[in-house]
Amino acid sequence: MSFYYRLQERLLALKSNRAFEFFVVAVIIISALEIGAKTYDLPDFAYALTRYLDVFITLFFLFEITIRFIAEPNKKDFFKSGWNIFDTLVVVVSLIPIQDSEMALLARLVRVFRVLRMVSIIPELRLLINSLIKALPQLGYVVLLLFIIFYIYAAIGSFLFKDINPFLWGNIAISMLTLFRVMTFEDWTDIQYETMEVYPLSWMFYMSFIFFTAFAFLNMVIGIVVNVMEEEHRAEALAHSKEPTIEDLQKEIKELKQMVSELARSRD
Amino acid sequence: MSFYYRLQERLLALKSNRAFEFFVVAVIIISALEIGAKTYDLPDFAYALTRYLDVFITLFFLFEITIRFIAEPNKKDFFKSGWNIFDTLVVVVSLIPIQDSEMALLARLVRVFRVLRMVSIIPELRLLINSLIKALPQLGYVVLLLFIIFYIYAAIGSFLFKDINPFLWGNIAISMLTLFRVMTFEDWTDIQYETMEVYPLSWMFYMSFIFFTAFAFLNMVIGIVVNVMEEEHRAEALAHSKEPTIEDLQKEIKELKQMVSELARSRD
Amino acid sequence: MSFYYRLQERLLALKSNRAFEFFVVAVIIISALEIGAKTYDLPDFAYALTRYLDVFITLFFLFEITIRFIAEPNKKDFFKSGWNIFDTLVVVVSLIPIQDSEMALLARLVRVFRVLRMVSIIPELRLLINSLIKALPQLGYVVLLLFIIFYIYAAIGSFLFKDINPFLWGNIAISMLTLFRVMTFEDWTDIQYETMEVYPLSWMFYMSFIFFTAFAFLNMVIGIVVNVMEEEHRAEALAHSKEPTIEDLQKEIKELKQMVSELARSRD
Amino acid sequence: MSFYYRLQERLLALKSNRAFEFFVVAVIIISALEIGAKTYDLPDFAYALTRYLDVFITLFFLFEITIRFIAEPNKKDFFKSGWNIFDTLVVVVSLIPIQDSEMALLARLVRVFRVLRMVSIIPELRLLINSLIKALPQLGYVVLLLFIIFYIYAAIGSFLFKDINPFLWGNIAISMLTLFRVMTFEDWTDIQYETMEVYPLSWMFYMSFIFFTAFAFLNMVIGIVVNVMEEEHRAEALAHSKEPTIEDLQKEIKELKQMVSELARSRD
Repeated sequence: MSFYYRLQERLLALKSNRAFEFFVVAVIIISALEIGAKTYDLPDFAYALTRYLDVFITLFFLFEITIRFIAEPNKKDFFKSGWNIFDTLVVVVSLIPIQDSEMALLARLVRVFRVLRMVSIIPELRLLINSLIKALPQLGYVVLLLFIIFYIYAAIGSFLFKDINPFLWGNIAISMLTLFRVMTFEDWTDIQYETMEVYPLSWMFYMSFIFFTAFAFLNMVIGIVVNVMEEEHRAEALAHSKEPTIEDLQKEIKELKQMVSELARSRD
Repeated sequence: MSFYYRLQERLLALKSNRAFEFFVVAVIIISALEIGAKTYDLPDFAYALTRYLDVFITLFFLFEITIRFIAEPNKKDFFKSGWNIFDTLVVVVSLIPIQDSEMALLARLVRVFRVLRMVSIIPELRLLINSLIKALPQLGYVVLLLFIIFYIYAAIGSFLFKDINPFLWGNIAISMLTLFRVMTFEDWTDIQYETMEVYPLSWMFYMSFIFFTAFAFLNMVIGIVVNVMEEEHRAEALAHSKEPTIEDLQKEIKELKQMVSELARSRD
Repeated sequence: MSFYYRLQERLLALKSNRAFEFFVVAVIIISALEIGAKTYDLPDFAYALTRYLDVFITLFFLFEITIRFIAEPNKKDFFKSGWNIFDTLVVVVSLIPIQDSEMALLARLVRVFRVLRMVSIIPELRLLINSLIKALPQLGYVVLLLFIIFYIYAAIGSFLFKDINPFLWGNIAISMLTLFRVMTFEDWTDIQYETMEVYPLSWMFYMSFIFFTAFAFLNMVIGIVVNVMEEEHRAEALAHSKEPTIEDLQKEIKELKQMVSELARSRD
Repeated sequence: MSFYYRLQERLLALKSNRAFEFFVVAVIIISALEIGAKTYDLPDFAYALTRYLDVFITLFFLFEITIRFIAEPNKKDFFKSGWNIFDTLVVVVSLIPIQDSEMALLARLVRVFRVLRMVSIIPELRLLINSLIKALPQLGYVVLLLFIIFYIYAAIGSFLFKDINPFLWGNIAISMLTLFRVMTFEDWTDIQYETMEVYPLSWMFYMSFIFFTAFAFLNMVIGIVVNVMEEEHRAEALAHSKEPTIEDLQKEIKELKQMVSELARSRD
């Protein structure tokens, strides 16, 4: 046990070592470059090289995550961090040996997520992602509202325009995809002109949809901005807490009053 | 009357019951899924199922709205809420029996609006919609300005470009539709190149239109943001109202002065 | 003179009369509808009607502006308002008799600007336009920066891509129009793929252009928002000016100190 | 040395002379117009004129930068300003004589950057650019995050869709260009429909990508806005620093207390 404790101390020192940290980032960058290189048609020797590199990266990531696990004093806390779970998953999944050619594509895809380890290793990026995740629940209801708008318009669109163009309005799922296209203004007038030949008033369908989704989206953006501003305000208010408040002043004036009134009483 | 009063009490209890609330939401979701399912080509038995489901949903909604109406102590207040009127309308309209095949499409469309009951049943979504409706009148004048810009450009466009492409500039209504397309940047350069062959300076028409509408729209967005911010400010100011203000302090200092001056006078 | 004074009084009363104001707005709306109607192919009698209507509207506008001019106590002030100058111009120009068929189109176009009288007659719309005009000079430098970016990219584009597609890059003016198209993301990839066949690195040209203009535009938007916010702040600060400031408090405390020190001195 | 000093004095006076400043701006504008003119097919005499103009502008710019260098009291400070380095570079590079027809295009391109001297000569534009440059480092991490999202999606896109359309997904670099196109909503549905024929669920790829990049971009915009607002706040706080703070008040009240307590003690 004493040996294990000494090992833990040393690994903790290694983990916090700046040179080691930079080496980990370097391996992640190399792994990203390797993934990028694989999308090109490589000569045979380069292809062989990527295979050896792949084994090295997999083993190094396994080594690094083991160090971090052993260095953690309280093993239970290790898996309380979503980032640790994410890192472990990425490492474990890429350990599974895949010989089957069918699965080769899947193996490649899994390795792509190694690039995301860049986010988990750089604290500033983790902060960015964390703040995004925090903002999500507050946006939940706006997203639900947006979904309801999409659902209603997709149902109406599918009922009315199915026979005009089944490729765009065949069923409610296809219609929702078409409406997402309309929301991004992607060739939406072609879709509109097509349906206007049968239903001349169908421009109202598209125009009202664009207004509703734009409004809902606007609401969402404003929601985030106001939220961020508020948190800034709160953070600023906390930073200024050392300055005396009006309440402190009132207290002091009251004490002064007490003193003057005592002075007056003592005179009588 | 005593019996009716007891019934009202029970229905009020039922209405506020969480299990009942969840059941209502569940039926609304099922009704939404049914509407979605109808957009697919269903086998005969599934189609028959949707017909029975439809009858059940219609009757359940009628039952639910009746409960809410009876549970309301003051019947007049029931129709003061826009949401109650909306719910009643949706239920009553879907009660109308439609056998005519011509009207089947209309019946389907009416049933789509049942999905909007999701908005009326979830308080957070009602809040979102209410806040949107509150913001609308303030935006009224900006929308009027935008409409005037559209109208003037559509009139000019129709006078100048009618003979170039009647499909796009045939009359003022068609021209406004074309200008809405230009505002969404949808293949607007095709329209521009076409008119520039006859009027080489017509790019000024499009560019000025894009700037004016973008400005008006920007104004609108800023109007909403400033408005929302102000309301946040006011809400915050109200929350802090328990803290003493500078006015309170001034009052206390004046009282203190009075005390000191009395002290001085008593000395003489 | 006494007669003229009495006339002026009466016209001022008429001008401020609500019924008269509504009638003026009604005539403007009718004139707008007439302009819209002219974009359709009208039957002969309707066409004749628009001619009579046109004469009536022209005379009524002349009458209304004359009333406003006479009602103005100080004639010099009348032309100090940009809106009055605008109204007078619109009326005077539409008075010019145009028989020439060549000029008929121009006559129509001039009449379109009558719709803008809607803006000059409704105070809320005038306020909107005035605030836009106020914001313009502050945005001047951002617009100049945007223009410089456009100019440089248009010159480079014209030098490099002229032989690839003279229709898009023929000279600096055409290039600027093409770049405006790229800024609105209108089929910009077609332009990019075309030049990438000759200069494979030309994607850097488009990507950097999009980033620079997006940044400049963003700056512009933020400029407006910050400006509007600041004015709101100032307006708010003015509204609260009746509340005592910290400076007022300090003054009172100093007076109090003076009183206490006098009290102490008198004791000695 | 005394002569040099007198020259420096005179050049400093010349440099600060308003007429000279306007002349410099005029020459820059002429140089910009000359660059624009060169993109047109010019008659021979005009072409000859531009060559003489070019020589004059080059010499004038050399003259102007020399003046500014000599007028600078401390020569080391001259190159501490990025704008001075930029101006010197533009002048020096355009001095290199280019006869080679191959390099003629390069010579033209270098001369285009003379237009940027407009930014370095107008203080307000320099301020705008400086504020943009200041904002960049803070946005660095968001840009890095955006790049990681692009990289991962480009790798996945290249692995999955390479055989479907090598022109769009051939390797990771091409894929990133295609994704930039998807982010600008430029004919992105064509790309989507093509891959959906092989992978029917590939709409999830595009939709998730659009959401992630839109979110990251939103974050960026908010980051800038909040940042700008904060600086405005700080500037405002500094401007109001002459007004007494609550802390000043507290100090004064404490002094007052001291006085009253001394008064009380002296009584005993």
